[in-house]
Amino acid sequence: MPDSTKLETFENPRPGREYTIEIVAPEFSSVCPITGQPDFGTIIIQYVPNKLCIELKSFKLYIFTFRNEGAFYETIVNQILDDMVKLLNPRKIEVTGEFTPRGGISTNVNAVYIKENEE
Amino acid sequence: MPDSTKLETFENPRPGREYTIEIVAPEFSSVCPITGQPDFGTIIIQYVPNKLCIELKSFKLYIFTFRNEGAFYETIVNQILDDMVKLLNPRKIEVTGEFTPRGGISTNVNAVYIKENEE
Amino acid sequence: MPDSTKLETFENPRPGREYTIEIVAPEFSSVCPITGQPDFGTIIIQYVPNKLCIELKSFKLYIFTFRNEGAFYETIVNQILDDMVKLLNPRKIEVTGEFTPRGGISTNVNAVYIKENEE
Amino acid sequence: MPDSTKLETFENPRPGREYTIEIVAPEFSSVCPITGQPDFGTIIIQYVPNKLCIELKSFKLYIFTFRNEGAFYETIVNQILDDMVKLLNPRKIEVTGEFTPRGGISTNVNAVYIKENEE
Amino acid sequence: MPDSTKLETFENPRPGREYTIEIVAPEFSSVCPITGQPDFGTIIIQYVPNKLCIELKSFKLYIFTFRNEGAFYETIVNQILDDMVKLLNPRKIEVTGEFTPRGGISTNVNAVYIKENEE
Amino acid sequence: MPDSTKLETFENPRPGREYTIEIVAPEFSSVCPITGQPDFGTIIIQYVPNKLCIELKSFKLYIFTFRNEGAFYETIVNQILDDMVKLLNPRKIEVTGEFTPRGGISTNVNAVYIKENEE
Amino acid sequence: MPDSTKLETFENPRPGREYTIEIVAPEFSSVCPITGQPDFGTIIIQYVPNKLCIELKSFKLYIFTFRNEGAFYETIVNQILDDMVKLLNPRKIEVTGEFTPRGGISTNVNAVYIKENEE
Amino acid sequence: MPDSTKLETFENPRPGREYTIEIVAPEFSSVCPITGQPDFGTIIIQYVPNKLCIELKSFKLYIFTFRNEGAFYETIVNQILDDMVKLLNPRKIEVTGEFTPRGGISTNVNAVYIKENEE
Amino acid sequence: MPDSTKLETFENPRPGREYTIEIVAPEFSSVCPITGQPDFGTIIIQYVPNKLCIELKSFKLYIFTFRNEGAFYETIVNQILDDMVKLLNPRKIEVTGEFTPRGGISTNVNAVYIKENEE
Amino acid sequence: MPDSTKLETFENPRPGREYTIEIVAPEFSSVCPITGQPDFGTIIIQYVPNKLCIELKSFKLYIFTFRNEGAFYETIVNQILDDMVKLLNPRKIEVTGEFTPRGGISTNVNAVYIKENEE
Repeated sequence: MPDSTKLETFENPRPGREYTIEIVAPEFSSVCPITGQPDFGTIIIQYVPNKLCIELKSFKLYIFTFRNEGAFYETIVNQILDDMVKLLNPRKIEVTGEFTPRGGISTNVNAVYIKENEE
Repeated sequence: MPDSTKLETFENPRPGREYTIEIVAPEFSSVCPITGQPDFGTIIIQYVPNKLCIELKSFKLYIFTFRNEGAFYETIVNQILDDMVKLLNPRKIEVTGEFTPRGGISTNVNAVYIKENEE
Repeated sequence: MPDSTKLETFENPRPGREYTIEIVAPEFSSVCPITGQPDFGTIIIQYVPNKLCIELKSFKLYIFTFRNEGAFYETIVNQILDDMVKLLNPRKIEVTGEFTPRGGISTNVNAVYIKENEE
Repeated sequence: MPDSTKLETFENPRPGREYTIEIVAPEFSSVCPITGQPDFGTIIIQYVPNKLCIELKSFKLYIFTFRNEGAFYETIVNQILDDMVKLLNPRKIEVTGEFTPRGGISTNVNAVYIKENEE
Repeated sequence: MPDSTKLETFENPRPGREYTIEIVAPEFSSVCPITGQPDFGTIIIQYVPNKLCIELKSFKLYIFTFRNEGAFYETIVNQILDDMVKLLNPRKIEVTGEFTPRGGISTNVNAVYIKENEE
Repeated sequence: MPDSTKLETFENPRPGREYTIEIVAPEFSSVCPITGQPDFGTIIIQYVPNKLCIELKSFKLYIFTFRNEGAFYETIVNQILDDMVKLLNPRKIEVTGEFTPRGGISTNVNAVYIKENEE
Repeated sequence: MPDSTKLETFENPRPGREYTIEIVAPEFSSVCPITGQPDFGTIIIQYVPNKLCIELKSFKLYIFTFRNEGAFYETIVNQILDDMVKLLNPRKIEVTGEFTPRGGISTNVNAVYIKENEE
Repeated sequence: MPDSTKLETFENPRPGREYTIEIVAPEFSSVCPITGQPDFGTIIIQYVPNKLCIELKSFKLYIFTFRNEGAFYETIVNQILDDMVKLLNPRKIEVTGEFTPRGGISTNVNAVYIKENEE
Repeated sequence: MPDSTKLETFENPRPGREYTIEIVAPEFSSVCPITGQPDFGTIIIQYVPNKLCIELKSFKLYIFTFRNEGAFYETIVNQILDDMVKLLNPRKIEVTGEFTPRGGISTNVNAVYIKENEE
Repeated sequence: MPDSTKLETFENPRPGREYTIEIVAPEFSSVCPITGQPDFGTIIIQYVPNKLCIELKSFKLYIFTFRNEGAFYETIVNQILDDMVKLLNPRKIEVTGEFTPRGGISTNVNAVYIKENEE
């Protein structure tokens, strides 16, 4: 099961500046909740850090915890967004999933969170 | 004939969040209403779900129902948009058709629906 | 000479909706008004139809009427825009010409018409 | 059903010279013999003509006759090769089918015929 | 564990002709035998069939059986080649694995089998 | 009509060396002999000169003489090869025509001449 | 030295319409003011004409006058913008220089002029 | 260690005009602060100069001073931005670092500085 | 200094079969022996193993030992080939170095070793 | 004028091995002998060294000496080949010039020298 406890952080080196970090993980894999067959895709995260940045190796391990998880694409992207918001409390964060074709049809899902009381 | 009764839905897993789903179907085919010869193209749907998401396999079968249908490109794209709005009642939806060249000339059609009383 | 009488139309299947049609014609050819040598380019038309849509085969024949016409690129693009506005009375239309290099230098011309009393 | 009677030919304009003609048809479609769903692909023909060349418009109509035919990729490519050999009696001919992915897996099939008593 | 019992075949529709079938499976995944982390790659098979062709859906299921298998790239490609030779007894077969980068370094492995007593 | 009298040559600066010259002319246009509509393509010439090289500006003018000529692709490529052989008496020459799609199908024609008594 | 006296103009064929002309010159060359070695780049000009358009052949000759000129990239782009503004009195003009790498580092410079009393 | 004393400037040739300079350095290398292994990436700087422009050769030497420096990507990009602001006092400056994949995951960091009292 | 003692091997899993392994390392860096400035490039190794295969992690560490080494491109590629031959005693091995441009000029070096008494 | 006295060499570090060096110089420029206008192109050299290798910086300066030289493409490539053979006495050398389009037509010239008494 997706396991957000694997996620680790380090202190933002410039908390006073609003800047952007993008992480691209093209080796995402999960399992189709209906057929049980593997799904594949790329997860892209763009965020403006607040006090914390995500540690990359722990993010890789977190992504691996979806490997045997049966879930719809829409659920996966929203789940990752929720986990990231809880972990990082970022000023802004956007999660995109680009999934490989099934039945000749490909799907992309994109969700955004903007912290309130921020411009 | 295009058959929207094949379309199925599932419940939006995060109805409280405004996020985007994109579906790309590069294997669209219909028939030219004038010459009776096959037409080919890619249908792209981008929508912000409300309470329902479209089930992909049923969407694939719906797309196949255009295969022996004679229709202008402009009619096809508007018809798909109407069927999707009726099915999903989405916050916003955009349908694009990119059709292969005929007589050395290629055509793209793009139509958008935005639900009223939404920002 | 360019001959707009070849252009034909059909009724817009969704006159109540503001949507976009793009036509890409990569096989445009005319003649340089100075040297008399052939020029080549791509003509791209994007428009929001009003009551009429352009019929593609007639558009192809219209494009062919430039084949032995000597004209500057700037004149060609503005002429096509004028012909389209007169024919279609569209809500909005944009014409772009992308011409192949001459003397190592390539030229693109872009012109837009927006109907008044439209948002 | 595939209908080779639609195929027409014209006389090779240089029968004394061994040269090559390549025809690329990216709008092939047939039906999966197991699921009944549409398949899509590109058919490529390369041949050295003997006394006859294939007429392109009739080839297009011939390709369309596969549209509602249920057949394995391996059968399709070999069938087209057989029909071409019978029609053209060419010095050499090669048929390639490049089919779009199914279940994340794409397939290409290639078959060659070389006329005997030719070097 | 890799499970070749999932593989199925069908009869070659033209056993008298020497032709080529290529299968491209870009969604291969296994596990690194040292770190236990997922590996990803593309498996490409090119073969000249003898009496049997490989059935694609069973091949997809066979590929999935590597998903939790810890194995070196060199072992994976040779294992698939051995399984294919045993299953198909082909005239010729080539297996290529193109694996995604690890530590900034990517690896490709290619192995070929040619049946004796064949030209 | 194609007019080979426009072609001019200059003396090969290294007649003692066997080397290759390639000329790529992507702005070829002729007329379909059946429909009377313009055809477009790229002509590629590769030759090993003997005593003469082709002068580029005259080649451009020669290519333009096909502009209002109705001819099959197969005839065009063989005609250019014949004209070049007569003009240049080259050690070897190859002419390729890559023509834009008609009815969704594109065609390439390739013809070669090798001077006898040359290795 | 750069010589703006080579530049010529012709009358804008549609002075009443605000439209855009783009000129791309990928064969720019000058000389490094420090090392004396050749520099290479592409100059891109986009402008909205007022009463005059730039004549392309004279623009090509103007570009050639930089060939033996030693100048910083920043000076070149601003100089071309100044010369164009003086020549054309345009409604708007933008000049971009994209220069090839030196010491593994490439440079682009972009400058814009907007006529006052225009929207 | 990163050594900003290597940076040199020259006078902006058009201080009265607001224009943009982009510098792309694809040969950046530093060291991972955790594993001690080399990291690689591209540094992109876009700025609107005030009174000073950066001299390219000194920028190249400055980039080289990161070669044996152990630092997080987030720290590197913010450090370069701070050094540039101090050196150039620019109207606006943006620094982007695009780093090569580690563990199958790639990272981009982007930070912007806008001078106060500027529009 | 380049340090071949870091290189490790594992036993070839199919010593009886002649197959090919390709390793692509795009993060090579050394130092110019004349200017002392960093050089960058990609090292590609293709080999037919004998009794041993190269272990990838040790190869990565070996590549890193060139990082502060001043050497000509021609020496680097031949040195790597010598080290690989000594380590692996392969049936065949080819080493290619593709180095990034210096002074606008890029260089590639390719060297091959074939074991004697092998076909 | 082209000045081969600028060319320098260094000793081949592995004279006993037959290997290949490729040099790509995309910033070649000369002058059209007829119009006096600048020509541009890429020069590619591939050679198997004998006792000497070419020094890159001197090669760059040699290439620059063509900058104000009026010469046909065919003469340029053969001249460079002659200069290289005289300088390096290589086992084998190939020179290719890829020149940018003139009048919509681009030209490539390729010449090879193989030392006698070499296999």
